[in-house]
Amino acid sequence: MKDRGAGKDSGRGGGRGRGKVYLVGAGPGDPELLTLKALRVLQEAEVVLYDRLVSPAVLERVNPLAQLLYVGKEAGEQDSVQQAIFQQLLHHARSGRKVVRLKGGDPMVYGRGGEEWAFLAAEGLEVELVPGLSSALAVPGLAGIPLTLRGVAGGFAVLTGQAQGGGLPDFTPYAQVDTLVVLMGVKQRVRIAGELLRLGRRADEPVAFIEKGSTPQERVVIATLGQVAQGEVEVRSPAVWVIGQVVRLREQLRAIEQTAERVVSGALG
Amino acid sequence: MKDRGAGKDSGRGGGRGRGKVYLVGAGPGDPELLTLKALRVLQEAEVVLYDRLVSPAVLERVNPLAQLLYVGKEAGEQDSVQQAIFQQLLHHARSGRKVVRLKGGDPMVYGRGGEEWAFLAAEGLEVELVPGLSSALAVPGLAGIPLTLRGVAGGFAVLTGQAQGGGLPDFTPYAQVDTLVVLMGVKQRVRIAGELLRLGRRADEPVAFIEKGSTPQERVVIATLGQVAQGEVEVRSPAVWVIGQVVRLREQLRAIEQTAERVVSGALG
Repeated sequence: MKDRGAGKDSGRGGGRGRGKVYLVGAGPGDPELLTLKALRVLQEAEVVLYDRLVSPAVLERVNPLAQLLYVGKEAGEQDSVQQAIFQQLLHHARSGRKVVRLKGGDPMVYGRGGEEWAFLAAEGLEVELVPGLSSALAVPGLAGIPLTLRGVAGGFAVLTGQAQGGGLPDFTPYAQVDTLVVLMGVKQRVRIAGELLRLGRRADEPVAFIEKGSTPQERVVIATLGQVAQGEVEVRSPAVWVIGQVVRLREQLRAIEQTAERVVSGALG
Repeated sequence: MKDRGAGKDSGRGGGRGRGKVYLVGAGPGDPELLTLKALRVLQEAEVVLYDRLVSPAVLERVNPLAQLLYVGKEAGEQDSVQQAIFQQLLHHARSGRKVVRLKGGDPMVYGRGGEEWAFLAAEGLEVELVPGLSSALAVPGLAGIPLTLRGVAGGFAVLTGQAQGGGLPDFTPYAQVDTLVVLMGVKQRVRIAGELLRLGRRADEPVAFIEKGSTPQERVVIATLGQVAQGEVEVRSPAVWVIGQVVRLREQLRAIEQTAERVVSGALG
């Protein structure tokens, strides 16, 4: 694709003649869950570098004249890929075009947003964050699972299931929180569940895996922590994993809903 | 205000003739941080029941013909107020009008969204959640503080500074996480900081309080946990409180930014 604008208009994206990058969160997948600001910035964008977790429906909302560049990393790929992303961001921002770095969820939660911001700032570029809905919060909510609930859960924690280097992170500091949300934990779910049991969580504690949350393909798997540790629970990655008594609210809502549907269909029939 | 539509059109809001409530997150304050769906629902609303933490700028985006009802609770008010909110929601939803329950941040994080959803569902009403940006994540991000950062923070937790009944919650299960975000903790900050030190966090650990995050009146106070425990840090409520090494990224970004501004103004002067 031709580099529209490059060279002849190099201060345009920067406001102060030094280039600018918008670090934008795409949210969990449903394009209606973009923020107004994210949509505006995407419709004005000239170059968009996007990740693996950005949904196709969100990409359809991008300015059709913008250059769309896929820069997703598969799990386990090395830091060299990240270095290449840094260099691409730098190249495009310095070309003077309006550059958006688009990430699934929120850029500042496991999005390497902090790293990219620091890198770009150190190179003299202006950075503006447009936060997005983190899947860690929005996906459970949409599935009827609040992360806090009076008398049930006073707080929550979010942890990745995959440490730097590929092993498990240390779950010890997170094992006792009321509600625990694990992102990128599907593949290692048996080991993680076993570790949480070892650290004192109960085998009968309810858990939910929410695949493709916020989209029409959403699928929710409910089980107990013990069942996950036994390898009895099938889940497809990526999914948001919620561990805690708050999962029961979903079951309660579903029971009510099903009763209501029976009443309504009974009244109609 | 006259009850437009009440009685004559009682199934309109419900889809199945049983009334419907949209449980909508208003995000941290900046109206551009509403989601597209939240804006659509607010513009179609006929009754909006809103909380104390919803910003005036967000309320300006509501359908000008809608009935706006303030149902905010001050901290420490009793459950009787919540009961009155339940009854108002029920009354308006059964009137057949399009009802929005609008909450600051995300309804499912300290918004009592789970409780209201369960109550309304048990009364036979349909509920649709429109998640919002939680201040716990978006406000630190906008202030240049990521909640996770490779090599610095592998996960985070969110806890309220105020337990049911008004005392401090038990910080023990949360004290060792990498990044800790405390909401509604400004008034009790001295006690909370003391408790976190007692539980093993370091006195020289950096903390940030972000007042009025995401708005032009944003004010950020940086200190150490020890200074907070000593009562040396002035903050105005409400503020989002971040505790952890990630706070240093903001300082790093600011230092770079100030250098860049000197370079640019030097070049222009």
